Amino acid sequence: MTHDYVSDIAPRCHDMSPEDFRLHGKLLLEWIANYLEDPRQYPVLARCQPGELQRLLPAAGPEKGESMEAILDDFEELILPRLTLWNHPHFHAYFSISSSAPGILAELLIAALDVNAMLWKSSPAATELEQITVSWVLEWLGLPSAWFGMIVDSASNAVLQAVVAARQRAEPECRAAGSSGRLVAYVSEHTHSSVEKAAIAAGIGQRNVRPIAADAGFRMKPEALAQAIRADLVNNMKPFFAVATVGTTSSTAVDPVAAIADLCREHGLWLHVDGAYGGSFAILPECRHWLDGVEGADSFVVNPHKMMMVPLDCSLFYTAHPALLRSAFSLEAEYLKTDAAGAIDFMDYGLALGRRFRALKLWFVLRFFGRDGLAAILRENLRMAAWLGERIAADARFELAAPATMGLVCFRLRQGEDATRELMRSINASGRFFVSHTVLDSRFTIRAAMGNIRTEQRDVEQLWVAITEALDPPE
Amino acid sequence: MTHDYVSDIAPRCHDMSPEDFRLHGKLLLEWIANYLEDPRQYPVLARCQPGELQRLLPAAGPEKGESMEAILDDFEELILPRLTLWNHPHFHAYFSISSSAPGILAELLIAALDVNAMLWKSSPAATELEQITVSWVLEWLGLPSAWFGMIVDSASNAVLQAVVAARQRAEPECRAAGSSGRLVAYVSEHTHSSVEKAAIAAGIGQRNVRPIAADAGFRMKPEALAQAIRADLVNNMKPFFAVATVGTTSSTAVDPVAAIADLCREHGLWLHVDGAYGGSFAILPECRHWLDGVEGADSFVVNPHKMMMVPLDCSLFYTAHPALLRSAFSLEAEYLKTDAAGAIDFMDYGLALGRRFRALKLWFVLRFFGRDGLAAILRENLRMAAWLGERIAADARFELAAPATMGLVCFRLRQGEDATRELMRSINASGRFFVSHTVLDSRFTIRAAMGNIRTEQRDVEQLWVAITEALDPPE
Repeated sequence: MTHDYVSDIAPRCHDMSPEDFRLHGKLLLEWIANYLEDPRQYPVLARCQPGELQRLLPAAGPEKGESMEAILDDFEELILPRLTLWNHPHFHAYFSISSSAPGILAELLIAALDVNAMLWKSSPAATELEQITVSWVLEWLGLPSAWFGMIVDSASNAVLQAVVAARQRAEPECRAAGSSGRLVAYVSEHTHSSVEKAAIAAGIGQRNVRPIAADAGFRMKPEALAQAIRADLVNNMKPFFAVATVGTTSSTAVDPVAAIADLCREHGLWLHVDGAYGGSFAILPECRHWLDGVEGADSFVVNPHKMMMVPLDCSLFYTAHPALLRSAFSLEAEYLKTDAAGAIDFMDYGLALGRRFRALKLWFVLRFFGRDGLAAILRENLRMAAWLGERIAADARFELAAPATMGLVCFRLRQGEDATRELMRSINASGRFFVSHTVLDSRFTIRAAMGNIRTEQRDVEQLWVAITEALDPPE
Repeated sequence: MTHDYVSDIAPRCHDMSPEDFRLHGKLLLEWIANYLEDPRQYPVLARCQPGELQRLLPAAGPEKGESMEAILDDFEELILPRLTLWNHPHFHAYFSISSSAPGILAELLIAALDVNAMLWKSSPAATELEQITVSWVLEWLGLPSAWFGMIVDSASNAVLQAVVAARQRAEPECRAAGSSGRLVAYVSEHTHSSVEKAAIAAGIGQRNVRPIAADAGFRMKPEALAQAIRADLVNNMKPFFAVATVGTTSSTAVDPVAAIADLCREHGLWLHVDGAYGGSFAILPECRHWLDGVEGADSFVVNPHKMMMVPLDCSLFYTAHPALLRSAFSLEAEYLKTDAAGAIDFMDYGLALGRRFRALKLWFVLRFFGRDGLAAILRENLRMAAWLGERIAADARFELAAPATMGLVCFRLRQGEDATRELMRSINASGRFFVSHTVLDSRFTIRAAMGNIRTEQRDVEQLWVAITEALDPPE
């Protein structure tokens, strides 16, 4: 970055002066504005070796304070070239995400205010803005109006909260006595790994998480779920929890939520619907059917930091049973007691006590784009994924590994596993594009996800050129 | 905020233009610079009723996108007056914290980059900067050089990770089979409530968390711990986990870490040292003794978002047993496999998959202040707390409820419980200062914490005036 001034480099025990804050802030804003104007000027995928940055930076922290100039220069020269850039129109790996400008500006304000939204008393507006924004999203997605919602850091944490609340319902004595070892949870073979991780952390046990078979479209088979529940009941186990996914990570498959909800109700299981990725599409009337049956769920998660243009991290956790959630998590430490009757203290509904003012960025983004704007962005992503899917389907060398219904295209070469692996390596080698992989039908599969707000039709066309050229390099 | 331009308010499906980003960014920077120049222009404590903001904002989200002007105006007119301002020199409740300017600027960059540091491959520089910054802090605090460190969101999450790793060591079969119901954890009656919450979430059971008696200085009694462990062993229970705190929430007491570590080693317990608040003071050579014995711990947490001037959230979790931690948490989902040999994938060491690029703000702050600068800030906080403690000790109407050794002053009126409660209500009533409370020796106690980077001697003097005037209003 270009600096036209010099700060002191003496040891300092006061914060930066307001003048320096303005100066450095403007430089950073300018750098970010330039970045956002065209991130394509940077490779999306870092090309470096493990340990490279560690060797370049000092092994010990500085004794004396350093200048912001030195810090920002090192950021640009040492850090940036070794970052894989998630907020980039050519990032198609995992799920592609976006940090939009209103969200970025909100984060600046969140950091400056440094509010901890643990209690209403410690943060009245942060608590209430969280209630308001989660209810806006609830309405946009057509979720039951009576549901309770809150913001957590990640879908991983959300599902842990769901598991703990579900256990509280199934074995109320568990809060005092611990897990019984008899509880069983059900996932599909395509459910996100965070559910298994939550079950391990909660002491349910990995062995007690049953992977249920999926059909040819990678959707959980309700009849297989029914069979597994019956088998566990015969064996004196206690089925208590199931997950249905709307937009699986591997292929964006949509589990039959309504049928699974029926089974869960019949057997008293807590149904958690994982819409971390796919849930946002329910903003679109033409896609709302993906959430059909969600009203039968006990909890639900959707990540605005995935498809709602909100910077990491912002994950919304909803439940039909806030009293249960509270009875699982609340503790009355004397130093946290307040007298705000009628107010919600979000710390009582989850694991974390320290909670950033995430509602502010969600509010900025929802208001800046509005429902119409977010809908238009989602539609464009669906359109681009469909466009790429059509190209691939029409080329005899490729096969689609799954229908490109959401913003993800899963494909492989007919030539076989090794060729597909080599193709992915080759697409990623230049650093211009970043795609990732999965395994579907036991075969290695490339995943190209759409979801960055700056991805345009020309980018997808370039990606398609890059894919075909990787296969058949120009002379 | 003052706006001298107008944006469109049409529905929008693209991000803000770079020009608008610059404009709005500059307005926000200017607002924040003014705020930081003197936060005292705002009351620290919001004076509003539960539900007030909810009634002022629309019940449904906007269909069309709105202007940044409208959003920023609403922030200033509706949100700000109802926020309790944590980043304020008169915030003395809970633990006082600081969001320093270099940390705020780093958050702007973190938000713009939107990097997810889940895997080395997804974020090489973010992963390695995390390794580097946690090792800098490790050295500054004099922690064992072989320890592994990582950044998590909160000490609540850190202790959950510690519980899960400890359980993995005590009952390796638990990962597959779930908790046994025989494990017992030990805390003091002053240990933070997050430990109990973690034990509940992990399925250990609240009943299996033994509160160990403390001495007159609110420190865990090792002999009481030894006795409790022996009693549990006789009853065929399995002691597996203990917490020693360096700087308890109620009174900043320091448990006898070395003696507790000896007992833990003897009986095979995992010792977690909670230095979330107090750990940072070990940067000061004259305070390093508070961590004496920490080398005998199995895990340790310190929160740079408390006393190291880093914006929320940034909590450092260290452990002597990274392989155990990994064996407790790692899962090999196909879509997350990479080929980066020799690299660390932090997602394998904890619950969250989505991980913000928090190392960047830690790096900015550590470099900007340097060890000397942070040490000077900590010393000034200790000095101001001691100054207030002396005033209170010298006034016959008051009594110190605990020695003011760290940055916290605990006091009450000799006149009794009701008078002390009324005094706290009265101090907080104007909104100019914010203190909180706890219970020590079964008596209601006011807590006044020092820790904001902008708190100066004049502020503490004004606080002392406010305390005495609340007691004895001027004519």
